[in-house]
Amino acid sequence: MTESAVMFAKDNAPRFVEELKALLRIPSVSTDPAHAADTRRAAEFVAAELRRIGMENVRLIETSTPELILAYGVGPGLVVPARNGHPLVYADYLHAAPVKGRPAPTALLYAHYDVQPPDPLDEWKSPPFEPTERDGNIYARGAVDDKGQLWIHMKALESLFAANGGKLPVNVRVLIEGEEEVGGEGIAAFVREHPEQLAAEVALVSDSEMFAPDLPTLCVGLRGMIYTEIEARGARTDLHSGMYGGAAPNPFVALAQIIASLKDESGKILIPGFYDKVAKPSADELKAWKALPFDEEHYRETEVGSTVLTGEPGYSVLERTWARPTLDVHGMPGGFIGAGAKTVIPARAVAKVSMRLVPDQAPAETFALYKSYVESLCPKGITLEVRLIHSGDAIVVSTDNPYVRAATSAMHDVFGKDTVFIRSGGSIPIVGDFIRELGIPSILMGFGLPDDNLHAPNEKFLLANFHRGIESIIRFLENVGAS
Amino acid sequence: MTESAVMFAKDNAPRFVEELKALLRIPSVSTDPAHAADTRRAAEFVAAELRRIGMENVRLIETSTPELILAYGVGPGLVVPARNGHPLVYADYLHAAPVKGRPAPTALLYAHYDVQPPDPLDEWKSPPFEPTERDGNIYARGAVDDKGQLWIHMKALESLFAANGGKLPVNVRVLIEGEEEVGGEGIAAFVREHPEQLAAEVALVSDSEMFAPDLPTLCVGLRGMIYTEIEARGARTDLHSGMYGGAAPNPFVALAQIIASLKDESGKILIPGFYDKVAKPSADELKAWKALPFDEEHYRETEVGSTVLTGEPGYSVLERTWARPTLDVHGMPGGFIGAGAKTVIPARAVAKVSMRLVPDQAPAETFALYKSYVESLCPKGITLEVRLIHSGDAIVVSTDNPYVRAATSAMHDVFGKDTVFIRSGGSIPIVGDFIRELGIPSILMGFGLPDDNLHAPNEKFLLANFHRGIESIIRFLENVGAS
Repeated sequence: MTESAVMFAKDNAPRFVEELKALLRIPSVSTDPAHAADTRRAAEFVAAELRRIGMENVRLIETSTPELILAYGVGPGLVVPARNGHPLVYADYLHAAPVKGRPAPTALLYAHYDVQPPDPLDEWKSPPFEPTERDGNIYARGAVDDKGQLWIHMKALESLFAANGGKLPVNVRVLIEGEEEVGGEGIAAFVREHPEQLAAEVALVSDSEMFAPDLPTLCVGLRGMIYTEIEARGARTDLHSGMYGGAAPNPFVALAQIIASLKDESGKILIPGFYDKVAKPSADELKAWKALPFDEEHYRETEVGSTVLTGEPGYSVLERTWARPTLDVHGMPGGFIGAGAKTVIPARAVAKVSMRLVPDQAPAETFALYKSYVESLCPKGITLEVRLIHSGDAIVVSTDNPYVRAATSAMHDVFGKDTVFIRSGGSIPIVGDFIRELGIPSILMGFGLPDDNLHAPNEKFLLANFHRGIESIIRFLENVGAS
Repeated sequence: MTESAVMFAKDNAPRFVEELKALLRIPSVSTDPAHAADTRRAAEFVAAELRRIGMENVRLIETSTPELILAYGVGPGLVVPARNGHPLVYADYLHAAPVKGRPAPTALLYAHYDVQPPDPLDEWKSPPFEPTERDGNIYARGAVDDKGQLWIHMKALESLFAANGGKLPVNVRVLIEGEEEVGGEGIAAFVREHPEQLAAEVALVSDSEMFAPDLPTLCVGLRGMIYTEIEARGARTDLHSGMYGGAAPNPFVALAQIIASLKDESGKILIPGFYDKVAKPSADELKAWKALPFDEEHYRETEVGSTVLTGEPGYSVLERTWARPTLDVHGMPGGFIGAGAKTVIPARAVAKVSMRLVPDQAPAETFALYKSYVESLCPKGITLEVRLIHSGDAIVVSTDNPYVRAATSAMHDVFGKDTVFIRSGGSIPIVGDFIRELGIPSILMGFGLPDDNLHAPNEKFLLANFHRGIESIIRFLENVGAS
């Protein structure tokens, strides 16, 4: 049965790609209220396909805008978000035949249909929402994050249905969200409030990447995060820097002073107590990382492209990006950002600052440390508001379970190689929710590549990995069903 | 004759205001390429009126985009200006009757028809380009800076023509620019290259303000400026802060570190050598400033509206804003500035930084000190480009000349009070050009008020001052003609 499902997938490969393109054409930018209708359209597109391939109980689950997001009001002069929740897409198939006298296990398949904003638009070689094939890749916003990987799940399920006479070899629930790029508060609330509707033995999350081309990879650790805004207010209204320069406080200078005090020049974060709870990777894990095929100079040149790499001294790049907390500034809205010269002292300015967290840094506690430290740095004449936009736990997944073995075996069949266990510097908060609320482990089997330009212009997905991903998931679900 | 010109102005006051409104409706935002046609339309509007009232040789003088501005290219992902020069408007009347056997002197009248961008739009109580009267004021972008004051010149000339049988009591040249808000490179080049076309004994510049309502004021000092951009580049493209946080340099953090090193917490600028050439005001001038009606607490509350005033310790507010150099940050384009959370490490970010200069700080020399210091602060992994966008000399105008007496006498007739001599913290580079290239002093007779919201939302102009301004300029030109 596995082989006929794989055959079906191979026979239908070109159609699968065309369908993916149709999904990629929908600009489901969840953070942008102007794309709210597009985002819903993507949900409906996915739901329709789930119905078509044979999944049952297909429905959209509305999410409400949580209080935390409602409180995210910025003052006049800045963009004020009016975000509604984007629906979850749910489907299931719960009557797989018992295996060896026991009920078939249930796999919960997770992916997301929303994408990052495409800006800066002028750096795209082909339009972000017009998927384009070049050099074996498909280029589009969302190609790898996460529509391509979402479509891998869909097409694995379709292939299994086709090869099994309209049945699946394992119970499956599908839960797909549309707010992954904006904090995923809606899915978190649903998982917390309705765990009984998601009962499963294992979750399959495909929103991560392979360590290198042709190297089957399971991600067993994720950083957490807190995403914040610091709003600095000075004068009541914007003032002319000629008239008032020397008397009026400057919110940008204030933010610069604060940011400069958050991190020293070596990259060490200066928030008191910030590192207190940081758990170190085990000696075995560190040893395995050292054995990974990683060329720091190649990484610097081809992936980062800066003159040198930065970060905390005394740690390797993999440690710094996987197992050490970091702090970044993403944008500083306010004032005059057009071409030319406007000599304004803006009344207010904002810094978008996030921190990546590692086990065992708790987001709420870390935010409290940060907020209190930032407030202690407030320059005179300035009032500050420090806001938490969203957060997620760091997690480490156990490698000692049958589902990990089902995954490594599946990928060995496809790639002919042993799986490497890595961590990821990114955050997939839902994995923490699945552990905490459902008590189930997640298999983080992703098929992206390090140079896929995640969240950046010219995001892409290697089409070979799209197809190998489908075969891997087919085999994984068969293995879980047979276990 | 003076009295009949004043009478004409009074009789026609409502019409004058309606005409001003028509000019204010033209969004001549010189810095914005999208408003290039509007900016030209404002020039043509002014030229047509000069012709109508009886001025001669009325023409638009095209300005070319200087190399300095052409070099102002910002990289992909940021707005790239494609600015063309905005024309000068020239007119003259050069056959005034001789006075006491000597040729009549010539006054060169300067103002500007371009305006600042209106953003942030949502803070305006009435639309910026729909002039609205409220409480005796006219509200619009450009109301006081400088269309209202430009129109004062026009209407004083019209009144003098009307009362003098189509003649003026003094030779007049009018030179009106459309690039004052973007550095005025065009007019500077014209003054430098064609001083013979501007031969005059005195310039009249109305682009400044009165120290207090009802207090006739001449501005005898202006700060200079350098307006710069620091562009920081890190990674080749935008990167995901999860994947690359801990390895990729962050241009915003770099800019924050640099800005925090430009100015200490007390407001002192830290650029080595920055204060070396600063000339102190004379003891007499400082004494006169102390006698001015200035209530620091009232200024803080009503004008600035911040919790405290900031700036260099040891200097009064008037000293800090008039006679001390200052540094401000106006905006930090780059990265993600929309609503919500985008976890990008931007490839590049820019800080718009300007410094106000005082006598005898030379702009070029100060920029060199600044650039070299900023470059010395460059964090690792970052490359910097420090650009000069435009600059202007600081100047102090002599009070010992007959034109100052013509002005103080005119304003005494209108306001019934002695004139106070002040400085302004702002920059009017053309005044330096008139001194340097034409060898003539400028009379800085302005009728704005400190709370006119220059360069900010809800810019306004007190209509009473519009009318008193017209009468003052009528009397001033009569006085110059009779001198």
